[in-house]
Amino acid sequence: MRVIIIGGGGMLGRKLALALGARGEIGGRAVSHLALADIIAPSPVEASFPVTTHRLDITDRAAVDALLAEGATGGAEIIYHLAAIVSAQSESEFDLGMRVNLMGSINVFEAARALGTCPKLVFTSSNAVYGGDIPEMIEDWTALNPQTSYGAEKAAAEMLLTDFSRRGFIDGRGLRLPTISIRPGKPNQAASSFMSSIFREPLQGREAICPVGPDYPHSYLSPRACVENLIHAAEVPAEALGMNRCFALPGRTHLIGDMVEAMRRVAGDAPVGLIRWEPDRSVQKIVLGWKAHFNPAKALALGFVRDDSFEDNIRFFLEDDIER
Amino acid sequence: MRVIIIGGGGMLGRKLALALGARGEIGGRAVSHLALADIIAPSPVEASFPVTTHRLDITDRAAVDALLAEGATGGAEIIYHLAAIVSAQSESEFDLGMRVNLMGSINVFEAARALGTCPKLVFTSSNAVYGGDIPEMIEDWTALNPQTSYGAEKAAAEMLLTDFSRRGFIDGRGLRLPTISIRPGKPNQAASSFMSSIFREPLQGREAICPVGPDYPHSYLSPRACVENLIHAAEVPAEALGMNRCFALPGRTHLIGDMVEAMRRVAGDAPVGLIRWEPDRSVQKIVLGWKAHFNPAKALALGFVRDDSFEDNIRFFLEDDIER
Repeated sequence: MRVIIIGGGGMLGRKLALALGARGEIGGRAVSHLALADIIAPSPVEASFPVTTHRLDITDRAAVDALLAEGATGGAEIIYHLAAIVSAQSESEFDLGMRVNLMGSINVFEAARALGTCPKLVFTSSNAVYGGDIPEMIEDWTALNPQTSYGAEKAAAEMLLTDFSRRGFIDGRGLRLPTISIRPGKPNQAASSFMSSIFREPLQGREAICPVGPDYPHSYLSPRACVENLIHAAEVPAEALGMNRCFALPGRTHLIGDMVEAMRRVAGDAPVGLIRWEPDRSVQKIVLGWKAHFNPAKALALGFVRDDSFEDNIRFFLEDDIER
Repeated sequence: MRVIIIGGGGMLGRKLALALGARGEIGGRAVSHLALADIIAPSPVEASFPVTTHRLDITDRAAVDALLAEGATGGAEIIYHLAAIVSAQSESEFDLGMRVNLMGSINVFEAARALGTCPKLVFTSSNAVYGGDIPEMIEDWTALNPQTSYGAEKAAAEMLLTDFSRRGFIDGRGLRLPTISIRPGKPNQAASSFMSSIFREPLQGREAICPVGPDYPHSYLSPRACVENLIHAAEVPAEALGMNRCFALPGRTHLIGDMVEAMRRVAGDAPVGLIRWEPDRSVQKIVLGWKAHFNPAKALALGFVRDDSFEDNIRFFLEDDIER
């Protein structure tokens, strides 16, 4: 199986590559080649199969065509499209977000279509597609009414992913990701960045700022469970997906205060004392528009997974990602 | 008020232009100029204000920019974007539909944004955005899950219309049109074309083919009520529109058989005898995926209107459009 990860240099792309390297197979078939592509060529991962790395700007259609069809990948069979300009940056740089998140995604869909083999295409959308004038409890048939440009661009791409699949151009699977926490590495420009940093930084002995109050509710998924779901997304049979190729992944909804107490139970009092509570209205303006309550019935029926509790999220970070 | 109608040569565009010519005002302000643009330059309409006509290909961004900003329109204040490749043609010519319905709409939104004046932009979406895995009764918060490329392209454009409006680039209003019946003129490539022709042709003494059975339910709006709603759409205050600029217009749901009986009550037995019932699976494949039952609460609260009964649709055709 020839797999390509667009956005292979990002946090999820890299973890997915490592997981594929460790498993050696996907959908019961051996991985024969893994191509990692990103705006800066990613570093390779260890695997028993060939892994190549590629510099790719998805706003360049010809470059996407070439990478998917030819060269190292030899015709991609499973395409992960994880590349995006994140929420806060899409808000501050509107044209860049449109170009990458919408036009770039269309380039990926069109290049996959041009292969003529109806390849599997796993696309990461986001719970940021929800918002606005919808009921508090989100069902699989709840309208997308994003209140960020990032969410609007993802929602528009979702419509096309389902249509390209309906037409048989690609075999698309669009996953609306809950906020991934605890993300390793550095804070990024996502408005949700603090939802990882208030745990990651204290667990590594550093201060972090929480811009919302302890009663802020939100839905989360650990990186480990997210990667399991990304792999599962390429394995679910097409006929099980129904008439909408895009759906919310299961997350767990927690209050910030409860998550902090989960950290205390797993890691003691010291990290909790490193959180500084400093309300930030520019962050709140974005994140208070996000929806928190989900009934991810479709994803659960399809076998996608969530964490058992936020203690899991803390433990997975300590096991997988902490920098000591 | 400087008004431009993109798609001004189409059936609705022309009726809208005639209505503006007859009223002379919109939103309590005199129309100072009306520009009609279409892929073939439309013929002008009679009015007390200047009317200019323009050839415009909306896939040409520079041409859209120029027309909205300069020349005859002098900076459009109200932009109607009604231009589209219709459903059956978007299904048979996928790339053309993408180019016009999605990329062309983005060109119009971007050109309107480039004016820097946050102009009103009335966009006609369609009930074809509904379909697939959703409940039978469609509420204002029901997911868009189109099962045609036309619907998918409209749905993607809707996401952008709301986002461009949220950002203050444009003051967008997106109306999901029910099927317009009775359309005057000739059959077009819309899969819904028969929903007018089985009345229009018999009322004009000609045979017509009905490709679905008498028990097929669907939601309708007359051209006359649709034009009233298009004008109202430019008059509704922005603050009343909430966080989603796009919503279903009110229609009435009828069975084909009941509509035929309405025609009999208004126009006698003769026209009914001119309908030939010939099931057509290629048409059914599209139209059986469309949803029929709507609760258009938002549109009704905003003052949009529907016909009282299908007898109205018949009468309006006889009054406004019949060719004798």
